[in-house]
Amino acid sequence: MLHDLFNPSVQHALDLVGIFVFAISGALLAVRKNFDVFGMAVLAEVTALGGGLFRDLVIGAVPPAAFTDLGYFLMPLVATALVFFLHPEVERTQTAVNVFDAAGLGLFCVTGTTKAYDYGLGLTSSAVLGMATGVGGGVLRDILAVEAPSLLRWDRDLYAVPAIVGATIVVLSIRFDVLNAYTSGIAVLTAFVLRLLAMRYHWRAPRAWNRRSSTRETEKATAQ
Amino acid sequence: MLHDLFNPSVQHALDLVGIFVFAISGALLAVRKNFDVFGMAVLAEVTALGGGLFRDLVIGAVPPAAFTDLGYFLMPLVATALVFFLHPEVERTQTAVNVFDAAGLGLFCVTGTTKAYDYGLGLTSSAVLGMATGVGGGVLRDILAVEAPSLLRWDRDLYAVPAIVGATIVVLSIRFDVLNAYTSGIAVLTAFVLRLLAMRYHWRAPRAWNRRSSTRETEKATAQ
Amino acid sequence: MLHDLFNPSVQHALDLVGIFVFAISGALLAVRKNFDVFGMAVLAEVTALGGGLFRDLVIGAVPPAAFTDLGYFLMPLVATALVFFLHPEVERTQTAVNVFDAAGLGLFCVTGTTKAYDYGLGLTSSAVLGMATGVGGGVLRDILAVEAPSLLRWDRDLYAVPAIVGATIVVLSIRFDVLNAYTSGIAVLTAFVLRLLAMRYHWRAPRAWNRRSSTRETEKATAQ
Repeated sequence: MLHDLFNPSVQHALDLVGIFVFAISGALLAVRKNFDVFGMAVLAEVTALGGGLFRDLVIGAVPPAAFTDLGYFLMPLVATALVFFLHPEVERTQTAVNVFDAAGLGLFCVTGTTKAYDYGLGLTSSAVLGMATGVGGGVLRDILAVEAPSLLRWDRDLYAVPAIVGATIVVLSIRFDVLNAYTSGIAVLTAFVLRLLAMRYHWRAPRAWNRRSSTRETEKATAQ
Repeated sequence: MLHDLFNPSVQHALDLVGIFVFAISGALLAVRKNFDVFGMAVLAEVTALGGGLFRDLVIGAVPPAAFTDLGYFLMPLVATALVFFLHPEVERTQTAVNVFDAAGLGLFCVTGTTKAYDYGLGLTSSAVLGMATGVGGGVLRDILAVEAPSLLRWDRDLYAVPAIVGATIVVLSIRFDVLNAYTSGIAVLTAFVLRLLAMRYHWRAPRAWNRRSSTRETEKATAQ
Repeated sequence: MLHDLFNPSVQHALDLVGIFVFAISGALLAVRKNFDVFGMAVLAEVTALGGGLFRDLVIGAVPPAAFTDLGYFLMPLVATALVFFLHPEVERTQTAVNVFDAAGLGLFCVTGTTKAYDYGLGLTSSAVLGMATGVGGGVLRDILAVEAPSLLRWDRDLYAVPAIVGATIVVLSIRFDVLNAYTSGIAVLTAFVLRLLAMRYHWRAPRAWNRRSSTRETEKATAQ
């Protein structure tokens, strides 16, 4: 069984940590959007479990893990309670939240890729679905909050690329038959560190070529 | 079979009523958003069938009921035609629509919970999915109309709580082995009445604690 | 097997063309929304594959074709690269893109209907799901870009009707046992030509009856 890469209880604990930090980011956005406590809980659940839910529906793993593991469901409620009572303190620790979110991203893209391959997807498809597992919850969070998904915006630090790299390391490990706890750990770490570097140095992806020049011209024209 | 709680034809008639009133709310929002008649039909279908469709995908009941029961599909079209020709009259009966919508909410959260349990979900997961069945269509409706989901907004009367209570009564009935037409009816009625009371007395859920104070301060600061 | 209506390699080539032009429309919207290159790729993939993905989840064809056929995944990336480097040229050929998009719509509603019927759906449900296959990707594209879905807006030329007509021709052909490459071709062509005519003559669907008068009155009132 590929997806018992780590000791099962270690794996489960890591999953819960990833779910928790993703849920924090959902609950914080709900506060910023002025949603009530149920809106916070919904956004926390969707952010934390949405990526995995999409993956499980695509590979036919029903009912999805989100609906069979009680801990997966309760963790976002704990995050909601924390943000509800302490949100200025939580926002002040935004850096810590970002670091955990990066860890969640690394972990989810790796476990997502592995689970997709376990269910019979090809290598490329597994990597794509693994990446979608990592970034999907955040996209759903932004859609529910009626905001342009931060994944798609050019003025946000790279988020998809670390997930792509992590997922690619996993499928290369599978391809060369060296997938184990160590190579998986390297994949998680690489995605995690890349995301931290992207935030630290504000790495961004380019927009369409002529867009940039024409936008600048428009801005000049508007400024005059 | 748990989900033949009521006489099947009674159950089916109740389902159609729930679908119809949910569809009315979808078509009315489409009118308010200036969509055309096809936009009305799409929003009516999505509002009425979206919650059940999500539930069926999660529990693996494919093809979902929305695509196997012709009545489920036709009912929203009837609602669309009605709103198309008579929408000022329908809006004038907004109170009646709200009452029916509350009935639909009560019914859907109960039948959703029961069907989820039938398909092997645990008690908590069944209640969560039952609640999602009740509120999911409305969330999809708001997303398609590019509006902040009214479920999440703090300035809307409680909607999730009646569904949670109804679903909880069902799983408690299952737990204590007393689920039947009477206890199910009590669950539907409780959710229905709670929703009516929430609308009548404008019950609302709190926002994050410090949000309220900091918002007030910001407002003061802005006012000066 | 119903869905081998055309020579398989012809069918596959047609699918790839449809995917490609849908992807172009997704990437172009991403440019207009100022998304980065990853946003362009995501919007291209979602627009091109979203309708078929929804269809496959509903009929239980998992993993969906989008995750098993590598060409389906790569085509939107080619479209993204093209728009990335050449988007002013691509926009200048907007008419050509619209023509291809109409072809994609015709093709997808026909193959979607056929595949749905193959998987055991009834005639009406197959037509509905076929239509959803054709229009679904565009709706998801607009939701991700936080725009009111152009499918729903009254000020857009008819898009759903050509898909409905194409899907209806398919189910009538099935009903009267004459579904083959010719009748399927007629269905594709009819949807295609109807969409072209709708764009050429700006055919639009009506809004709710009293809406139009009350809007006009409001406009008058505002103008005074």
